[in-house]
Amino acid sequence: MPTAAKGWGTDAPDQPLRPMNFERRDLRPDDVAIKITHAGICHSDLHTARNDWHGSQYPVIPGHEIVGTVTAIGDEVTRHRVGDTVAVGCMVDSCMTCDQCLEGWEVFCREGCTQTYNSPDRHSGEITKGGYTDHIVVRDHFVLKVPDGMDVARVAPLLCAGITTYSPLRQYDVGAGDKVAVVGLGGLGHMGVKLAAAMGAEVTMITTTPEKGDDARELGAHDVIISTDKEQMKAAATRFDFILNTIPVSHEIDGYLNLLGRSGRMVIVGALNEMPGFTGANLIWWNRAVGGSAIGGIPETQEMLDFCAAKDIYPECEHIAMSEVNEAYERLLKNDVRYRFVIDMDRGL
Amino acid sequence: MPTAAKGWGTDAPDQPLRPMNFERRDLRPDDVAIKITHAGICHSDLHTARNDWHGSQYPVIPGHEIVGTVTAIGDEVTRHRVGDTVAVGCMVDSCMTCDQCLEGWEVFCREGCTQTYNSPDRHSGEITKGGYTDHIVVRDHFVLKVPDGMDVARVAPLLCAGITTYSPLRQYDVGAGDKVAVVGLGGLGHMGVKLAAAMGAEVTMITTTPEKGDDARELGAHDVIISTDKEQMKAAATRFDFILNTIPVSHEIDGYLNLLGRSGRMVIVGALNEMPGFTGANLIWWNRAVGGSAIGGIPETQEMLDFCAAKDIYPECEHIAMSEVNEAYERLLKNDVRYRFVIDMDRGL
Repeated sequence: MPTAAKGWGTDAPDQPLRPMNFERRDLRPDDVAIKITHAGICHSDLHTARNDWHGSQYPVIPGHEIVGTVTAIGDEVTRHRVGDTVAVGCMVDSCMTCDQCLEGWEVFCREGCTQTYNSPDRHSGEITKGGYTDHIVVRDHFVLKVPDGMDVARVAPLLCAGITTYSPLRQYDVGAGDKVAVVGLGGLGHMGVKLAAAMGAEVTMITTTPEKGDDARELGAHDVIISTDKEQMKAAATRFDFILNTIPVSHEIDGYLNLLGRSGRMVIVGALNEMPGFTGANLIWWNRAVGGSAIGGIPETQEMLDFCAAKDIYPECEHIAMSEVNEAYERLLKNDVRYRFVIDMDRGL
Repeated sequence: MPTAAKGWGTDAPDQPLRPMNFERRDLRPDDVAIKITHAGICHSDLHTARNDWHGSQYPVIPGHEIVGTVTAIGDEVTRHRVGDTVAVGCMVDSCMTCDQCLEGWEVFCREGCTQTYNSPDRHSGEITKGGYTDHIVVRDHFVLKVPDGMDVARVAPLLCAGITTYSPLRQYDVGAGDKVAVVGLGGLGHMGVKLAAAMGAEVTMITTTPEKGDDARELGAHDVIISTDKEQMKAAATRFDFILNTIPVSHEIDGYLNLLGRSGRMVIVGALNEMPGFTGANLIWWNRAVGGSAIGGIPETQEMLDFCAAKDIYPECEHIAMSEVNEAYERLLKNDVRYRFVIDMDRGL
């Protein structure tokens, strides 16, 4: 039997989020039911709620940074038990048979992975509804274990902001002694600083905002460069092995490429749209490269959670009640958050 | 005592090359004198002769794909002996004390390496003169050994076209089973096909010119894609692990990025100028990257020569007499060469 569910969603691009009642599906044999305790707010939630990327299917109930407790499991589930503290990120299903899925990169499933919200369920075709809700039902493979002893109130943003910054650092083998720069101090950037520092890198924050310098150092940055200061940028030429670029909008890359040393790599994780041109010689000279990186697959996401537990790494969270979500969205648009909103369901739904 | 030298050079951007007499310096203790037997013609030679990149200092005597025989050595030279068959590429000197030089990447010398022609000598300030000459004097470290048994008449183009394509294949660890595409079938591209195939990769040539398909297969390509055929390009989406992009002019990269699979890399070796914009999502989705690569350092250039000797790999050469250089330049401008001109000094200078 489907179960009655409560959440907050929106009916149209120009409407605020409001309380909504809907149903969660009955458990399939490989499903896990989760009572949600915390849901992070990602900028993608706002983009989807407002149809910025087109294709939103209303009502939209966002949320893909989910933490909660297992309340029931399907007959075939062996990896999770009732009472476990678990997490769900940006995906809830995939074909599980293609090369990408078999290699643990479900995000690149050849059939397209099923996203946590605003995505058709592979079986019923119903549009998925995310974490701004009291509970969720998710295929077991896509349910992560929250390691014992973690502060569950601060785990949620790891499921998107965390894995999006952890994955490129791991793909490019960032480690002890590497000179790393993180461009942009927001939800992603602040995790980038913490994770790169925890991996042993020497971390520099590159920001347009001088006031963010102190914050960056508190987060673990060893140095700060103000990107609008031409002298500072010039002095930093060829200084870095790796740049994690979290700028979420289209931007010139030549100035950042110049900061890369021999075989240095810059990875873009935020800017999805059309980027301006760049100078070929800025890649050819010094054997540089610019890449991109999406979220990781499920195995890497679990690895990230385990890493954060072992290293005691958490996002900076501002906890809010579900009813404050519309105000939070307005503040998000002004970058007025240090550094991630987390909805605490105990404050009422 | 300086020695009298003969070569072909040009006095101005709009002048053809003509025979010239000049002097080569007396041997310094770490110098090697080389009687030149063969010199390859690189498109850079033409660009510099015609001042396309500005900064040409006339008279320009080009040539940085040089093969010859050692005729004399300085007092301190131990690596080379009179009679050895040797080669010289794009560099003839560097500081040899900075991090880049010490790590074998003299091309990125912090003080700037001394190029084989049109570059001020580090000691005398005299402008270097290249390989379109009867002999040259080069610091021992920058003289490569031509392995015994190689066909010396076909070695010269390896010193630029060879190393420029070998280096990125090695940097990105291309090897057995990798699916590699080479974009552009010219001096660089044809070496890319041969080298990637010799490394065990499955090689596809991507060209705008259907007529080049047969050539590409003869060179070792296992498959051919015509880049102007939208259906072929669409069918090849996510097919390649690595793309060696030898296009020498500014061009759109989105269409090629789409051909890269997960963590696929494209490396640009030809297009130095301003490139048009690209779509950020084309890098972020599939964790792709686009890089650039210059020539390798001296250790890697020697490694490349040894590899080509062991695998019996040579460029396709059209041998000409020195006096045919102006005609060769005109044909080069029309891409009318399969695939590299080599000046044979025995045909007269």
